[in-house]
Order: sequence, then C-alpha cells, then structure tokens
Amino acid sequence: MSESGKKAMSAYIIAPNPADPTLTRPVRGRDHTGAEVDIRVVEERPLTIFLNSQEIVTAMTIGDWPDLLALGYLLNQNMLHRDDAVTAVDFDAELETIVIRTARATNYEQKLQKKIRTSGCAVGTVYGDVMEALEAVALPKAELRTSWLYRLTKLINTTPSLYLEAGAIHGCALCERDQPLVYFEDVGRHNAVDKTAGWMWREGVSGDDKIFYTTGRLTSEMVIKTALMGVPILASRSGFTASGVELARKVGLTLIGRLRGKRFVCLSGEERLTWDADPDAISDEPREAGRKGADR
Amino acid sequence: MSESGKKAMSAYIIAPNPADPTLTRPVRGRDHTGAEVDIRVVEERPLTIFLNSQEIVTAMTIGDWPDLLALGYLLNQNMLHRDDAVTAVDFDAELETIVIRTARATNYEQKLQKKIRTSGCAVGTVYGDVMEALEAVALPKAELRTSWLYRLTKLINTTPSLYLEAGAIHGCALCERDQPLVYFEDVGRHNAVDKTAGWMWREGVSGDDKIFYTTGRLTSEMVIKTALMGVPILASRSGFTASGVELARKVGLTLIGRLRGKRFVCLSGEERLTWDADPDAISDEPREAGRKGADR
Repeated sequence: MSESGKKAMSAYIIAPNPADPTLTRPVRGRDHTGAEVDIRVVEERPLTIFLNSQEIVTAMTIGDWPDLLALGYLLNQNMLHRDDAVTAVDFDAELETIVIRTARATNYEQKLQKKIRTSGCAVGTVYGDVMEALEAVALPKAELRTSWLYRLTKLINTTPSLYLEAGAIHGCALCERDQPLVYFEDVGRHNAVDKTAGWMWREGVSGDDKIFYTTGRLTSEMVIKTALMGVPILASRSGFTASGVELARKVGLTLIGRLRGKRFVCLSGEERLTWDADPDAISDEPREAGRKGADR
Repeated sequence: MSESGKKAMSAYIIAPNPADPTLTRPVRGRDHTGAEVDIRVVEERPLTIFLNSQEIVTAMTIGDWPDLLALGYLLNQNMLHRDDAVTAVDFDAELETIVIRTARATNYEQKLQKKIRTSGCAVGTVYGDVMEALEAVALPKAELRTSWLYRLTKLINTTPSLYLEAGAIHGCALCERDQPLVYFEDVGRHNAVDKTAGWMWREGVSGDDKIFYTTGRLTSEMVIKTALMGVPILASRSGFTASGVELARKVGLTLIGRLRGKRFVCLSGEERLTWDADPDAISDEPREAGRKGADR
C-alpha cells in the first residue's frame, strides 16, 4: 500500500476486517479450466433482534457488529427513539439473538401487525409511519467537492475488505470531506446502513457535515435511511430508481450515482456540489480494481 | 445486431421490453463535467397482492407482468399450490393491486403472523415451512456444457434490456441448453425470480432440463427458489454466500458463480458439468459491454 493509502487507512475509526475467520468460509470447487480451486465465501447467518421482551425481526447478516446492527435497525424503524436510554445490550452468539433494553417501556405489537399488511418485501419495510418521521427532517446546507468524491471512491475501493477478499457483499462508508470514517459491510445492504446508523447514534455523531457512500442502488429506501440519519449527501457507484430520485428531490438530499472512475451523475441537490477537480486528470478505473457493486 | 444475435433474440418467448415507456422515466441532472444530462431511470412502484380476500404482501416492482409476479410469489411462498385451480386474476393498475382467486378456499392469517416473528428482512421471508417443501424436492440428472454457459452469458448480456437502457435492475433468464427462453427484469431480484416461477407454472413448463441464470448473488434464498422451481442448475455473474453453497450441496443443485468472460467457479453439483469449450478461445469481457450485476 502507498504511504498516502496507509495514512488514509489509519484514519478509519472502523474499517472492514477481512482477516476475521468467522466472516468467511473456505470452500473447494472447480474453475473454468476444470482445475480444483479453493475460494473464500462470506457467511450469512440469522440474527434475531429483540426490543425488551418483544421479538422484532430476524435479519440475515455476516455477523459482525450485532450491537450496532440492532441499534441502527430499531432506530431506522422508529422503534428506538433518539432520546431513549439504552440500559443493556445482550448478544448471545450461540442463540443468534440480541436484546436491546430501554428505560422506556416499549410495545410494537400493533406496528408489527401493520408491517405485514403494508409491506413484507425487501424494500417495503421502511414505509408507513417512517414517512412521517421523514417529513420532520430538514437537511442542512453542506458542501461536496468533486475532488473529495474522487478521493473517497479511490480510498474505499482499495481499502482491504471482505468484498475484495470474497465478493458478494455490500459496503457503506460514512465520510467527512475526503476521508471515510467508518466502513461497514454486510450481505444485506440494509444491514450495512443500519450498522452505520447505530454507530452514529451510539457515538453521538451528527450527519450534518457527512457524506454517505454506498455500493448499492439509490432506491427510495436508501434515500429515506440517509435522510433519517441527517446526512445531506448520498453517493453510489450504482444507478437510480425513479422513486429514489423523486424522494431525494422532495427532502433536498444531494444524490450522486453511477460514480465510477471520473464519471458520475447528480440527479438531486446539485447546489451543494462544486466541480473543483479536472475530470480528465482522473484515470478511468482499471478493469480488475474496479468494484462492481455487491454482485461481484 | 449480428445475424446470430437476431436469431437468438427471435427465439425468446419473453424478452425485456426496454422501449415500454411505463418502465423508465426521463430525469435531468448534471454529469461529472458539470454539463446538463438527460438519463432514464427505472420505475419502482408498489403492487399489493391479494389471494382471494386476503391481502398478502406489497412488493416494490417495475410493474411489468403483475400476473406472473403475483402467481410466482404465491407459489414460492407455498400459498398457491401447484395443483390449485386459479379461477381469476384481477389486476387494477390504478389501485396498484392484483387479486388471485382460487377454487380452493385459502386462509394464511396464521402464516402471515408467523412471518413477522421469524423474518421480516429481505432474505428471510422464504424460511419456515418453505424449508419443508424443499425437503420434498429431488433434482434430476441434467447436463451443463461450458460451451452453453459461454453462449448464454454472451446472449443475455447483449439482449436489449432495461439494464442496458437504465441500469439499477436485476435480471433472470430461464434457459434450455444454450438458448434463453424467458428473460425477466425487476428492481427486486426476488420479483424477477417470482415472475419466472409464475410463467413456468402457468405454461406447465418443467424445470428438469433448464438452466436458471441470474445477475444476483447466490444466496440461500436464490438456491431455495431455484430448487422449488425444479431447476437443477443455477448460474450467476455474481458471487456466493456460504449458506447458499451449503444448501445447494444439500439439495444437489449445480451452482456456478462469478461467471464473467471465460471465468467461473462451480461450488456444487459439478457432476452435471462438461468442460467442452476451450476457455482460451473465449475473450474476456470488453470493459463497457460487461454487465456488472444490478448495481450498475
């Protein structure tokens, strides 16, 4: 790694840990030549989240940071409030459960009932009363320089990660100016976002001056979660859905997509963007180094 | 398009229709040079599926083939049985609902209750009693030649599609030997699979001699859905999760991943595979033509 790369790595507060043996598994197979090969594949295991005595959800996850995942999930579902006092976080690796206990008594029986009726599929679970919470969000003025975008993508794509080790995984990085602060990965894109939200809440980190980078598509759900974290800028290697764009414009979120090499498209909130870098000085991604989203 | 390309296209029973104006929306933004650009982005809209008088789920979908999506979803959830008589399929575009009516009286109140408790996240909704259905599956002997794999990926990646038009979308193709028969796309990978299952059931198509190609990752959920469709071979451009591999080995499914250019890895069911092509005669993917999964 280059000196500048090492310096950037040391500035991470949390970075992926591809060396953790619990997160991947060696598997033997055959390649296109018929030769035997050994590769590593990512784990995907259930984690059942309880809020006090109530079972809320079972998420499929790689299994790192169960505490941040549970906190972030409950926050993003509006079941844990920002001013709640969390009295205990009990993780049981064997039972694959985590219990978040709060000073406030909670009961989301009715909300859980509602969820079946109104959603159930991947991208539907944040609708409903979460949309109301979104209306209270006022995203701040903030700056985004194209030079930061270029440096961020280069840093994130070359950071040692489960993605580079085993593929088939999503990544999310919370950044300030041109420096990624925390970089979470998970088999579910939602989970990587929720871990970020959990970390921000636990550490009392404001989203005001942050940039959220994701490898996933810019759907309405991603826009909602980013806005609820109070982060005014969302950038991705991937493309957009129409409702993601529509919602970003409604809440005033800066939305950057198809960010690869020197190229990107901004479809919302361009007033935060300053074109301070010469795109022609940015090389296109080398074929093999280029991250291709989760679906490597 | 080349003559062989045209011939392959005409052999599709269902192919993507990127020209359908209801599936994408033109959006204006700015690119990396600061210039104004107009791009097309895919739609993502709710579809609420009813089985007889019961509301089952709201899926977020691009909106084509609502009938096949609803049928396939209910089949894959084991709520519609393979021997059920469907008496009506009522789609209401304005209300964004579809009602599947069956001769058999149905009531899945209890199952819907269970779903909240045991899952809720993206990849969790097929667990539970679906695992029991999986145990009854016996996948047939079948053949897969590497020459077919190479031709299939080339054909599918060059077929005019919403992916090539707007990105941010998953695709699934059901194939026989070296010919794709139906090719569905959707913002949710699950939906593209469910449309395939719906089509197979409606047309009485057996999975025995088929190959299922997906752009998404090879998770346990993808393995389950493929096995339930009776298809013995699953191939993807993307990578694997450990539980996907484990489950494929358990049910005897041939699992091919990281299929790009001449390269691939087979991690399960290699006894169906014949290496009849010379990989060195296959060119690596040209940089821009290469499909990068949904997350373009």
